[in-house]
Amino acid sequence: MSDHLEAIRPLELHEIELARARIAGTVSRTPLIPLNLGLGFPEIYLKLENLQPTSAYKLRGAANAIAMLSDKERRDGVWTISAGNAGHGLAYAARAAGIPCTVVVIETAPVAKIERMKALGAQLIPIPYDAAWRAMELREYPGTKGTFVHPFDDHNFIVGHATMGLEILEDLPNAATVLTAIGGGGLITAVGSAAKLIQPSIRVLGVEPETAAPAKVSFESGSPQAFPGWTSSFVDGAGGKSIFPRMWDRMTPVVDGTLVVTLDEVRIAIQMLADKSRVIAEGAGALPLAAIMAGQVKDGPVVAVVSGGNIDLDVFCACIDRR
Amino acid sequence: MSDHLEAIRPLELHEIELARARIAGTVSRTPLIPLNLGLGFPEIYLKLENLQPTSAYKLRGAANAIAMLSDKERRDGVWTISAGNAGHGLAYAARAAGIPCTVVVIETAPVAKIERMKALGAQLIPIPYDAAWRAMELREYPGTKGTFVHPFDDHNFIVGHATMGLEILEDLPNAATVLTAIGGGGLITAVGSAAKLIQPSIRVLGVEPETAAPAKVSFESGSPQAFPGWTSSFVDGAGGKSIFPRMWDRMTPVVDGTLVVTLDEVRIAIQMLADKSRVIAEGAGALPLAAIMAGQVKDGPVVAVVSGGNIDLDVFCACIDRR
Repeated sequence: MSDHLEAIRPLELHEIELARARIAGTVSRTPLIPLNLGLGFPEIYLKLENLQPTSAYKLRGAANAIAMLSDKERRDGVWTISAGNAGHGLAYAARAAGIPCTVVVIETAPVAKIERMKALGAQLIPIPYDAAWRAMELREYPGTKGTFVHPFDDHNFIVGHATMGLEILEDLPNAATVLTAIGGGGLITAVGSAAKLIQPSIRVLGVEPETAAPAKVSFESGSPQAFPGWTSSFVDGAGGKSIFPRMWDRMTPVVDGTLVVTLDEVRIAIQMLADKSRVIAEGAGALPLAAIMAGQVKDGPVVAVVSGGNIDLDVFCACIDRR
Repeated sequence: MSDHLEAIRPLELHEIELARARIAGTVSRTPLIPLNLGLGFPEIYLKLENLQPTSAYKLRGAANAIAMLSDKERRDGVWTISAGNAGHGLAYAARAAGIPCTVVVIETAPVAKIERMKALGAQLIPIPYDAAWRAMELREYPGTKGTFVHPFDDHNFIVGHATMGLEILEDLPNAATVLTAIGGGGLITAVGSAAKLIQPSIRVLGVEPETAAPAKVSFESGSPQAFPGWTSSFVDGAGGKSIFPRMWDRMTPVVDGTLVVTLDEVRIAIQMLADKSRVIAEGAGALPLAAIMAGQVKDGPVVAVVSGGNIDLDVFCACIDRR
């Protein structure tokens, strides 16, 4: 493991604002659109990060991390470990900046994600899920070089994601609740930090699939835990095997609780997003709406972060098939 | 036919700005997002009107027309004739304003569109395509009452759509070309008028499917024409049987030309919008991108208006199926 891990510290508003200026040329300001589910549901708004050029929010952090490299670091390039979206974001931002990029990619990543990284010129090193999770702890893997951008445990990466929180509160200053998926924990730390810096009373909730819910176990026990009986699913962009202790320290000050949904509830949310909002969401991107549709959130206006849309289209069509 | 048709007149910037304020509570400010097709293609931006609450731009005009009704007119309600999107927009805006709405609906409209109008409490009168096209000329149909909002030949309806043009030029002041579908002609009149009021040198092009291209025939002959050999297709939101003389007078001052694409080119554009931008577009909404992908547009930056997303999801999945 690297000897000199940066100390964990809270995000500050001014660094998020600096990041916003830094990444404005690479990242889209995504829309916040209403979704009306009718009586019995709170007022719902969708933050459509699946409309980013890479179809996922990770581009925000990647663009920020790359913009902050020194000239020497730029020459040596960057690498990351990813199930797809972080690697895709880093590959896109690296290509835009003209620097080399390597992605240690989890073998079970969707074909769509792998093809996109290849098309952006990234060098790919496929490895099994367990080995990747271990490499994320070690922060090293044979055959890589240059600056390692951790897919969640990296301050500047998280600061980049936090720009999304600024946009949400600008568009909906009276938001009462914000929901995001929890995978590694970078997204919820980022959005929760920005939201609470602007509006301290806002509630920030994380959502996990039933098959991979280490944050739920961790919040119940009050310490970072592994999830017993973890299984992989089509919700591949969220739900880790465990909560990293460093991510636990980052997220707990800005997260009010976690929710868990079933895989069927995720499929129904994907269907709803297609039916009513005409967007394609990946499993992780549909987790927040799944929790709302399951009646787990009462306080509106509520923002559901649709974190990404990188689902293989045949899996998507199987989800929305109602025959 | 009604005796007192309003005289045709050009749109004015101040009335579009008034409309924008009038409809702001009902209509979304949709995003303009980049789409990178790589070398050989111009810089492309998508105006995502499929993200409106009714999944189509027609809500803009409907909300404006309804907001301008007198108290007496509001009591009597509104009606229109529609293949789906105009009816859906009017039903949505009428419901929001608490007034009754009747839609004379073309029988071949997609099930998705019909179900949505029903869910909004609109009274539906299904009729065949030819009868509907005739009723649009006559501006009357048995069983209807209240104020008729023509689905394209209505000044205030068009002024509402024109608010989209303001947004496009705000987000991309250096746009060189704007492409929209041509159906009745309301959309292109609206967007073309707003765009040229703000930036007179901008090029405005209409796109039609090969199966229904009366604007092409009309521009070739210099006068409003019917399209010989019209056939229906899954591109149901564009391509009329003819260009109405009144719509010809409205559109010609603000349209620089028309393009025609094949149905296969439309399918490929729908696939591209799903693949790269993660949105669901209906056939009419994909016409502009189809023309760009077919190499018919060289001058960028070019804006492709994705006018709507109301396609039956099984038709959509058949379009994106690459097995």
